[in-house]
Amino acid sequence: MNQNFDVVGIGNALVDILARVEEEFLTENGIEKGIMHLIDRPRAAELYGQMGPATEISGGSGANTIAGLAMLGAQAAYVGKVKDDQLGAIFAHDIRAQGAIFETPLAAKGADHETGRCMVLVSPDGERSMNTYLGVSEHLAPADIDVGVMGAANWLYLEGYRFDGAESHEAFAKAIAACKRAGGKASVTLSDPFCVDRHRDAFRRMIRDDLDLLFANEHELMSLYQTGSLPEALGACAEDVQLAAVTVGPDGAWVIENGARTHVPTRPATVIDATGAGDLFAAGFLHGLTQGRPLADCGRMGCIAAGEIIGHIGARPETDLKSLMEEAGLG
Amino acid sequence: MNQNFDVVGIGNALVDILARVEEEFLTENGIEKGIMHLIDRPRAAELYGQMGPATEISGGSGANTIAGLAMLGAQAAYVGKVKDDQLGAIFAHDIRAQGAIFETPLAAKGADHETGRCMVLVSPDGERSMNTYLGVSEHLAPADIDVGVMGAANWLYLEGYRFDGAESHEAFAKAIAACKRAGGKASVTLSDPFCVDRHRDAFRRMIRDDLDLLFANEHELMSLYQTGSLPEALGACAEDVQLAAVTVGPDGAWVIENGARTHVPTRPATVIDATGAGDLFAAGFLHGLTQGRPLADCGRMGCIAAGEIIGHIGARPETDLKSLMEEAGLG
Repeated sequence: MNQNFDVVGIGNALVDILARVEEEFLTENGIEKGIMHLIDRPRAAELYGQMGPATEISGGSGANTIAGLAMLGAQAAYVGKVKDDQLGAIFAHDIRAQGAIFETPLAAKGADHETGRCMVLVSPDGERSMNTYLGVSEHLAPADIDVGVMGAANWLYLEGYRFDGAESHEAFAKAIAACKRAGGKASVTLSDPFCVDRHRDAFRRMIRDDLDLLFANEHELMSLYQTGSLPEALGACAEDVQLAAVTVGPDGAWVIENGARTHVPTRPATVIDATGAGDLFAAGFLHGLTQGRPLADCGRMGCIAAGEIIGHIGARPETDLKSLMEEAGLG
Repeated sequence: MNQNFDVVGIGNALVDILARVEEEFLTENGIEKGIMHLIDRPRAAELYGQMGPATEISGGSGANTIAGLAMLGAQAAYVGKVKDDQLGAIFAHDIRAQGAIFETPLAAKGADHETGRCMVLVSPDGERSMNTYLGVSEHLAPADIDVGVMGAANWLYLEGYRFDGAESHEAFAKAIAACKRAGGKASVTLSDPFCVDRHRDAFRRMIRDDLDLLFANEHELMSLYQTGSLPEALGACAEDVQLAAVTVGPDGAWVIENGARTHVPTRPATVIDATGAGDLFAAGFLHGLTQGRPLADCGRMGCIAAGEIIGHIGARPETDLKSLMEEAGLG
């Protein structure tokens, strides 16, 4: 491949099935609010049977980030596993139509699993509770990693959720090695506090030994360092990694570089659907980085992209992010 | 079946694939604005390849009407053909989750066609241009008509688009006969001016001989009577059918009963996406009828439901239609 990529992302390739629900729906169905629940096929069928009419929009945390980057004009590629089925076709169409390269081999036809999907239940407060049936996205393996593509990446962006697959740890290691050997840098997002809880040691080892940049929200970071105090978590993080961007909801974000913390404020916004806020923050931040902007600007760009995504249903941008950056003097 | 139905609808069971496009996209792809284009599989693939990222929402004109009726609290059932595939599962889930009965036998597995879909291109003026790959919805046949269900219907609602299938003419005839034999009434919507052009004689014969109620918009009605004058078309219509409801966009609707015309005004509204306006007008109107309301109220209810659907992307209601009717004193 002769192309260079600003960012190459790896994660769970999913289609989101979004529906508004009342608070009671979450309680009655035993769904803890605001987090991602991994569910199996029978549970997926049961929950879908309970849900009201829905809307389908391509999703997948890392894929949302790559879609955002492509919309911003970055050269971006995505690696994630779908099948040759209708949801797989929808996923592939949407990310390519946004301008990203997506060439991961399709999962074998006829096998048991289908393309993965995430039932996103949006409560009246705009919070989203995710119920993910991973399907074939679970089977992302080292063979899916094209070292040529990884070597062509200025930045690698790894989705923490994929730590839930043993083969994907190896896939990540292969990707990081190929990227760094060619002079690229590697980043990871922690994805979810419970995902961090399931794979704390692996996350901490990778962050200390292999990574140049860590993305997290406050809950994920506190889970990583097993503390209820954000300042303490930020302090521990500053010792582990050279660069980190930690979102703190309506308070914006903290950027940590070589131990020094900078706060990035954000504008107040009405949250229609929080799905994808962290994903789009990462898109804006990484775009700023690849453009060589100061870190405070990168943080602002992250907050602008996140602000767009929480203003509507779904985790793929609807308003031209490039124009939003230009309006803010960051174009 | 021991249940009675307020309305039973029959039509093309489709999933909508919605995307915003610029005017140039329509010109460059040779798509005439505002109408429905029947397309084959290669054209569907070509067009999808050109389209930007999209959102999937269950659609199908008659199915949108039935979903609206179910949301209004009516006992409603739908008949339309999907396959045992992912889009078929989405269609079936969404209409059932709205409270409608949907029991049409699935199209045979392994056959060539898939569940049908409609690529809805929404231009900046809110107008929608539809590109329909019918898939298995084309094969709705007399065998799919359960005479027990038809006999249990107070109102039958036939989607004009289905006149594009020879077997469906027979299916419609079977449904009308069973419904009317049991004392029910039958209605049809003309669906699209070019569809009317393709099947003018069949429409006119059915309207004169078999139907109790005709739904149309001004363009469809003028196409039916081959005139450029709406008053002339309304006059001709008044001679053909006992009851008709004709929508006239932002000017509301005309209701014709036994030759007498009544105008129903509507409130000005911003059109985000016109998809489903006629479908939801029919839902509101039929709901009023089955509740025994005066025709002027039925017209108002149609306009209220249509007003909801044009205010957002997609042709399935997002706001509780029942509450909207109550707010207008029509609950």
